[in-house]
Amino acid sequence: MSAQPLDDLSRLCIHTVTTRPWSIEEAAANYAAAGLGGITVWRDSFDGHGPAEAGRIIRAEGLDVVSLVRGGFFTAVDAGARRQAIDENKRIIDEAAELGAPLVVLVTGADPEQSLAASRDQIDHALEAILPHAEAAGVALGIEPLHPVYADSRSAVNTLAHANDIAEAFDSRALGVVVDVYHLWWDPALEREIARCGAGGHLLAFHVCDWKSPTEHILLDRGLMGEGCIPRRQIRGWVEDTGFDGYVEVEIFSERYWSQDQHDFLQQIQDAYLTHV
Amino acid sequence: MSAQPLDDLSRLCIHTVTTRPWSIEEAAANYAAAGLGGITVWRDSFDGHGPAEAGRIIRAEGLDVVSLVRGGFFTAVDAGARRQAIDENKRIIDEAAELGAPLVVLVTGADPEQSLAASRDQIDHALEAILPHAEAAGVALGIEPLHPVYADSRSAVNTLAHANDIAEAFDSRALGVVVDVYHLWWDPALEREIARCGAGGHLLAFHVCDWKSPTEHILLDRGLMGEGCIPRRQIRGWVEDTGFDGYVEVEIFSERYWSQDQHDFLQQIQDAYLTHV
Repeated sequence: MSAQPLDDLSRLCIHTVTTRPWSIEEAAANYAAAGLGGITVWRDSFDGHGPAEAGRIIRAEGLDVVSLVRGGFFTAVDAGARRQAIDENKRIIDEAAELGAPLVVLVTGADPEQSLAASRDQIDHALEAILPHAEAAGVALGIEPLHPVYADSRSAVNTLAHANDIAEAFDSRALGVVVDVYHLWWDPALEREIARCGAGGHLLAFHVCDWKSPTEHILLDRGLMGEGCIPRRQIRGWVEDTGFDGYVEVEIFSERYWSQDQHDFLQQIQDAYLTHV
Repeated sequence: MSAQPLDDLSRLCIHTVTTRPWSIEEAAANYAAAGLGGITVWRDSFDGHGPAEAGRIIRAEGLDVVSLVRGGFFTAVDAGARRQAIDENKRIIDEAAELGAPLVVLVTGADPEQSLAASRDQIDHALEAILPHAEAAGVALGIEPLHPVYADSRSAVNTLAHANDIAEAFDSRALGVVVDVYHLWWDPALEREIARCGAGGHLLAFHVCDWKSPTEHILLDRGLMGEGCIPRRQIRGWVEDTGFDGYVEVEIFSERYWSQDQHDFLQQIQDAYLTHV
């Protein structure tokens, strides 16, 4: 059953990277003024602020902190680099706790100098190493499977089935999965794997944008919802059929939108959210 | 068990698009002089020649015609365009018969103006429409699943599992699957799906190149074997474990290599084939 259009902005959350030209204060103030419910913070948005201060700025505007982005990048040929990544991820978990974010989004990493099988083993080992830290901090970790076009250097986890496998193997309330339509829309198993993810209690977050055809740049040309070919509403329906009623998070990396007036862009996001999600 | 290095060029086949600056006469003569066993012909290589004449040119050099590339592109919002695609594919099958190619490689198509589900239905219907023509002509059709990065506009079949599903549903000796490492290397189910493809008698062709990290252009920056992160030899081992002993086909689209001296490039291909496949 296809979802009904969203009729207010209470479940709309925007990632600070989406409006990158804005400081954390500007983003929080402008999102709140527009009537959004939540904000997801990218670590490079902290600027000079500590995470605790960033959290106070955001809550003073009446916004929910939905998640901290991003941890992960666990893979490397060099064992020392892998140990550093584990330490860094423990710090990110601590930052999330200080910020007041219930979730850290993980981009698991991949290293073209080694096999995907090796990277996948390293991801499992790193999760095992940091999960107790997350449980103790009361912060959940969300594995975000990335599109296979990023399998060389960004993520060795490229399908929702694989992310579900990992989440089920660990069986921890502090480990789940992030569903991003940009990465997963092409997968013929998507409906089934979303249902599986929800049934296992692992569906922690839902990200939207669009896939432009053609896409001019594989990292920095994501589309606003409605500009591309992703069946956004159908996928939202599958997500909500699992009982998910959390935020719909807009995460767009786009040189084109970053170069525009960000107030205009924020209005476009709201319109696109109500019309095309 | 990982495959052993290849120790001669008898199973090496090159796609004419790989050495695009060469005419069909030049490609055939130069591939044969290098000691290759086969050639796969791209339709735009026919130039002024008819397919029968192209076949004679190739056989006069002692090369096998491995396949004709490419048919497909079955999907469109417009029903008239879909009927035209079916007619065009019947002509391509006839061309393959005249050329003496036992196989037509199919890129199934996708249309960003409609859902992937609609495109996938149209692909099934088109295959049903052309398969009797292929059977009568004694030409096989090979579905080539394309990387998910092409799901918007080139192929709604993006995993080997999906291609296997289609091949098994039709259950015809004239319909099978083409395995290309560029499109499939990231898939955690690849070993299993290659075994399934082979066991079903559907593994008709095997294409190699490499995935550069970073990739500068998603269409025209494929790497020579050894330049990237694809486990080429491991995948060849999985293919050969099914009993496949056909050609290893080099298919590289690269503005960089096309701008080089093609004799030098042909030598590089031979070296890479013996060292990195």
